[in-house]
Amino acid sequence: MPAYFDHNATTPVDERVVDAMLPHFHGQFGNPSSLHRLGRQSRQALEQAREQVAELVGAHPGQVVFTSGGTEANNLALRGAGVDRLVVSAIEHASVMMSARFLESLGCDLFVAGVDPQGCLDKVLLEAYLHDAGAACRSATRGLVSVMMANNETGVIQDVPPLAALAREYGYLMHSDAAQAAGRIPIRWQDAGVHMMTLSAHKMYGPKGIGALIVDKSVELAPQILGGGHEAGRRAGTENLASIVGFGVAAELARGRIDARGRQSAKLRARLERRIDTLPVVIYSAHADRLPNTVYLSVPGIDGETLVMQLDQMGFAVSSGSACDSGGRTPSHVLMAMGVPAELAGCAIRVSLGDSNTAEDIDAFVAALSRLIDRFAPQRAEPTFATVS
Amino acid sequence: MPAYFDHNATTPVDERVVDAMLPHFHGQFGNPSSLHRLGRQSRQALEQAREQVAELVGAHPGQVVFTSGGTEANNLALRGAGVDRLVVSAIEHASVMMSARFLESLGCDLFVAGVDPQGCLDKVLLEAYLHDAGAACRSATRGLVSVMMANNETGVIQDVPPLAALAREYGYLMHSDAAQAAGRIPIRWQDAGVHMMTLSAHKMYGPKGIGALIVDKSVELAPQILGGGHEAGRRAGTENLASIVGFGVAAELARGRIDARGRQSAKLRARLERRIDTLPVVIYSAHADRLPNTVYLSVPGIDGETLVMQLDQMGFAVSSGSACDSGGRTPSHVLMAMGVPAELAGCAIRVSLGDSNTAEDIDAFVAALSRLIDRFAPQRAEPTFATVS
Repeated sequence: MPAYFDHNATTPVDERVVDAMLPHFHGQFGNPSSLHRLGRQSRQALEQAREQVAELVGAHPGQVVFTSGGTEANNLALRGAGVDRLVVSAIEHASVMMSARFLESLGCDLFVAGVDPQGCLDKVLLEAYLHDAGAACRSATRGLVSVMMANNETGVIQDVPPLAALAREYGYLMHSDAAQAAGRIPIRWQDAGVHMMTLSAHKMYGPKGIGALIVDKSVELAPQILGGGHEAGRRAGTENLASIVGFGVAAELARGRIDARGRQSAKLRARLERRIDTLPVVIYSAHADRLPNTVYLSVPGIDGETLVMQLDQMGFAVSSGSACDSGGRTPSHVLMAMGVPAELAGCAIRVSLGDSNTAEDIDAFVAALSRLIDRFAPQRAEPTFATVS
Repeated sequence: MPAYFDHNATTPVDERVVDAMLPHFHGQFGNPSSLHRLGRQSRQALEQAREQVAELVGAHPGQVVFTSGGTEANNLALRGAGVDRLVVSAIEHASVMMSARFLESLGCDLFVAGVDPQGCLDKVLLEAYLHDAGAACRSATRGLVSVMMANNETGVIQDVPPLAALAREYGYLMHSDAAQAAGRIPIRWQDAGVHMMTLSAHKMYGPKGIGALIVDKSVELAPQILGGGHEAGRRAGTENLASIVGFGVAAELARGRIDARGRQSAKLRARLERRIDTLPVVIYSAHADRLPNTVYLSVPGIDGETLVMQLDQMGFAVSSGSACDSGGRTPSHVLMAMGVPAELAGCAIRVSLGDSNTAEDIDAFVAALSRLIDRFAPQRAEPTFATVS
């Protein structure tokens, strides 16, 4: 078993989550829409999970729409809101970005808001856009701003509450993709001030294939998967009972552990960053508020994918960027938006920590990275892109 | 544990399926898009499952697009095919029907093809429509015919191959929702002659929340969930690894057992129908080719939901119609399309058999039904709607 440093790609499922799911494979497996006892028991389990998921972010259970994951939730938010004016940040996940481009192709007005070199949304730019577009939006049009709570690559946490306030001030709906943030940093629905929020179970030790969109009751959401009246008419399809129950338990466990988890990650990351500081690496967004578990870095001169494969052989699982996008060899759009040169961006690897990681893992990783640098990029003695970090 | 007679609503997950899923919750839990070993192992497991699912219907693995279930697969088929002319049968599942109505609202030409009193599609009507519309379709427009392989309520098996041949003759694509048929009757992709076919795992002792659309390579399918390039660009979102692996095993088990399962169901159903023949009930589609596990009947004078609740208390889980649609009190659109009077349709219950059912279950069920008839509808001594069956 390698040292797993890829928790932003996916996490193992907590054994308590699996234990909660198992009875719903056989025994309590009824279709929650069935009227008989087995069905009603499933309905009850479903609604309990809805409460647990809502509670993680302090929302109301009635606001929770279960989806097949964060990607579907993001599609539902953007495409279900019925908007004709859309603002997204330049560093959004592909599911937001592609939905936005799709809406643009249908005639929706799209503004992609840039970020600064640290990967933070440029609020002044956003306000300038909203101000210019505002008059129109207040009248006939319906607008939405979508800014992720924490970036999957850099881990940068956007300051969502003031952005949401700004959006509301100009009559826009506000959505935030919290797939990476939820379970890692405390989130309060009320404080965030958004109309819609995306959650994903498999980033918080729950199963893959299940997520949720939390939706304010003021939003008239058009379902994107049509059929039966499931999820109060907001998402059709037989409910993924076992996975929803697992999501509920994962959310409850995350809620109980969020502070301890954050402290543990932060401590390990501080150790990691302290030690790699002696190596010729560039750490991205080092001066921004980041998820405590994420380090995104480049070793100038060593291609990211090469590094991932070499580290893999040495027993360390890291990512060369967003696993969700992988297959492509284009440099990260997040780093591009931050103004990182393409060559350096191509060297990026992401280390994302989790519950199982130890200080020994960190030390072994730094030693391995150091050996690889000696082997593949010995000529680089000093960081040469200090301005980036 | 009640005698479970609601296998068309959902099935328990086979323990061998659960056993195959478990390693993918922890241990082999990598994101299939990750480049490291854990990711590559997941990718391998995913592709093996794709082969197993393809093999169930004799399709090519590259044709399999995993979705979150049958509902999403039906949405993808209808909305992803880019058609402006659509024919669906009047007895399709809500996911097909609602997708069709949605496309109609966007300007798509929709023809809902009726069925005969046995619930079989009227082929003459279909050909007449295709003939009239054909000239137009051959030129600028793109058409799709969607006819389910087996109906979820009546169990009626449509004769898809000649319908598909007809559709092709007139230049239409052909889709068939085989969610209820797959795993219950043998299906050969080549023989069916369709361009797209919907499958669902939880109707064949696999987990809920996973399904597939089998897609001919000639079909240019527009993804309906946008984001990363998963499923060869046809469906974005981190793959639901454990469930997909479970689906694969369920498909393989179904393939091995399909004949034995069919014989067992047919034998039990024959026993059931023989015995209830002495009761004042109406059996729908009795003279049609049906799934061997399905009996759909009304007890005139006893409301379907009442009967479901009473039977539930006596230890029998049946459905009062399509569980997927439940919550609504409107009579089944399937029975309406067959010309069944609304009052009689409101009395319908569905008995759908499965692997765990025994002859003793059947006999106990008939005894219970007989007692309920004595209690709730004693005045009805003889079937009065013999024309329907």
